[in-house]
Amino acid sequence: MNVTVRGRTRHFRTVSFDAAKNRVLLIEQRLLPHEFKVVGTRDFRATAVAIRDMVVRGAGAIGATAAYGLAQGARAFRGRDLGKFQAHVEAVFQTLAQARPTAVDPVNAMLDLRRAMSVGTTVAEQQTLALRAAERFADEDVAHCKAIGRHGAKLIRNGMRVLTHCNAGWLAFVDIGTATAPMYAAQATGRRFHVFCDETRPRSQGATLTAWELAQQGVPHQIIADNAAGFLMWRDEIDLVIVGSDRTLGRTGEVANKIGTYTKAVLAKRHGIPFYVAIPLSTIDWQMRSGRDIPIEERSESEVLGAWGIVQGPKSKVQSLKSGERAFVRVANPTSRARNPGFDVTPPELITGIITPEGIFKPGELWRHRAKLGGPA
Amino acid sequence: MNVTVRGRTRHFRTVSFDAAKNRVLLIEQRLLPHEFKVVGTRDFRATAVAIRDMVVRGAGAIGATAAYGLAQGARAFRGRDLGKFQAHVEAVFQTLAQARPTAVDPVNAMLDLRRAMSVGTTVAEQQTLALRAAERFADEDVAHCKAIGRHGAKLIRNGMRVLTHCNAGWLAFVDIGTATAPMYAAQATGRRFHVFCDETRPRSQGATLTAWELAQQGVPHQIIADNAAGFLMWRDEIDLVIVGSDRTLGRTGEVANKIGTYTKAVLAKRHGIPFYVAIPLSTIDWQMRSGRDIPIEERSESEVLGAWGIVQGPKSKVQSLKSGERAFVRVANPTSRARNPGFDVTPPELITGIITPEGIFKPGELWRHRAKLGGPA
Repeated sequence: MNVTVRGRTRHFRTVSFDAAKNRVLLIEQRLLPHEFKVVGTRDFRATAVAIRDMVVRGAGAIGATAAYGLAQGARAFRGRDLGKFQAHVEAVFQTLAQARPTAVDPVNAMLDLRRAMSVGTTVAEQQTLALRAAERFADEDVAHCKAIGRHGAKLIRNGMRVLTHCNAGWLAFVDIGTATAPMYAAQATGRRFHVFCDETRPRSQGATLTAWELAQQGVPHQIIADNAAGFLMWRDEIDLVIVGSDRTLGRTGEVANKIGTYTKAVLAKRHGIPFYVAIPLSTIDWQMRSGRDIPIEERSESEVLGAWGIVQGPKSKVQSLKSGERAFVRVANPTSRARNPGFDVTPPELITGIITPEGIFKPGELWRHRAKLGGPA
Repeated sequence: MNVTVRGRTRHFRTVSFDAAKNRVLLIEQRLLPHEFKVVGTRDFRATAVAIRDMVVRGAGAIGATAAYGLAQGARAFRGRDLGKFQAHVEAVFQTLAQARPTAVDPVNAMLDLRRAMSVGTTVAEQQTLALRAAERFADEDVAHCKAIGRHGAKLIRNGMRVLTHCNAGWLAFVDIGTATAPMYAAQATGRRFHVFCDETRPRSQGATLTAWELAQQGVPHQIIADNAAGFLMWRDEIDLVIVGSDRTLGRTGEVANKIGTYTKAVLAKRHGIPFYVAIPLSTIDWQMRSGRDIPIEERSESEVLGAWGIVQGPKSKVQSLKSGERAFVRVANPTSRARNPGFDVTPPELITGIITPEGIFKPGELWRHRAKLGGPA
């Protein structure tokens, strides 16, 4: 999407590739919304670290990053021994797959890439095919998000108040986003609506990334505490919920997404508010048979115990602190510890529909439509 | 409760009165959990500001603070004209009542005080009666919390995992607390259990105050993001929920409490987890006929847009920031705004029981038992 930096507006993708330098280029999302910066990873290990440490996050974006990372790793191989090359690629694959164990996109993207590479008969050919496949993967991600926007835009009518959780925006994909795609598409047709962004503790991706995105595109919005959505629903101030997903089970319609999604779905059900999940096909897991089997990351306690932000001078009343600098503050009691599950699982009975590039489906109907949705035969 | 400061353990009340200096003494709760300090308010206006700005917060604590504040204001009157004195007391009453419009305790406490004062026939007599009534109010608050602990302790069995939201602990009352009273009483009988504290954004009273309280008393606990409780319930890791209330409607059983309480009640209902609300009788509003009529404060946007905490040196990587100092950081996108409702309303069908000093009641049965619960005839 377009980003305006110091008055100049330019188009950026979240993830791209510098073939000359063999670097993956990433918008450094941990600096947002306070600073906009593009960084390049030196090698595939640095790319894996960037995924793990959330320089880049979001289903599609880490899928494309892993694809580019695999191509980057493959291209760094020196020699002609195809057996050694394949062992090297396997090691690259494992390193990148381990960076975020809950997400399915990196693995799916890299499996695609390996299939495309396998046509090549020499190391050099496979290296070329790897990059071509990664670029195609990124372009398809953008096309899928655009299709999600076309299908989902009709859900947003004039005057609606739409809730979203975490960031399933263009920063979470190569471009456009999923949960935000219907919003950007509806905005493009001139519809007016208001978005409530859950701040999405503990990492606050709603308050930082989604709010930044919506502000850049001029979509009216307000940030709310995660605690406030239930109250706003009770007050009839929310008409529609759209969220993303890190993994959707094709067999059951269960949706793994950022911690707190399940809670919003339970509330929406109680209040009769439509609850939609927007996903690219790559996010569908056709193998797993139960949401209970989805591995849920337990993340660092420090995320819960404090917050990152920009020191506010006039309000801080602490003279030695320099206003405008980024710092981590410990909010919680210093002698207490935390528990920090990163994701939760929402069952299909709480989901009105799954917005995909191929149209909107009931969660229980994904399996029946698996041929159309890229599932197994 | 006991507080250990620099290795020395001493008993403190949250609110008390220095009769010689005519000052209300308050634990400065905005400095907790990072600093423990008792402050004295100069006059009743300063006491009202302390209530409004949350130096002191929590149903019982602001009730006692308002009672002491009314006595403080009455005692500051110079002269013998009973008419002028009563007009002055009325002005003090209004100032203190306006400090936190959602809460019912300050008004109830001050109405009690005025009734007690009215027996006096001179200004001096009424001034003496005012302070005596305020002291009695504070002592009764402590006795009520102890009774809540006796009744509620039997709900906590060995090995249980108990969720609480916000702070309805001793810091929210004169001592002991309400939601925490069953925990402290169960601990005193040697029972072992684990408490999950919702951090309770946007003001983080769970992460700061409740966690500090539980740590001071040695109760095992973990802080969780407000988003995480639904997941823990889905995983069968929560057995019981106990929260407080800022206002409970005696006619309907509806409970107004910190934003997010309603969400936890909806989740607990879905998972069949008992959901209890612990309240002193002063928190019951016997007049109001619908929870929709409870005024809900819309608080400052900045609470949602950032966080207060202690700057962490080693992690901040910002050399000019001094580690260990208190600062406000702006977390959210700088060009976005927020919505910040302070409370929500939980309907009786989501509440298993109301723990009162007189025993545990179904929310729908408060009105039938109103004689016992201090209600109207």
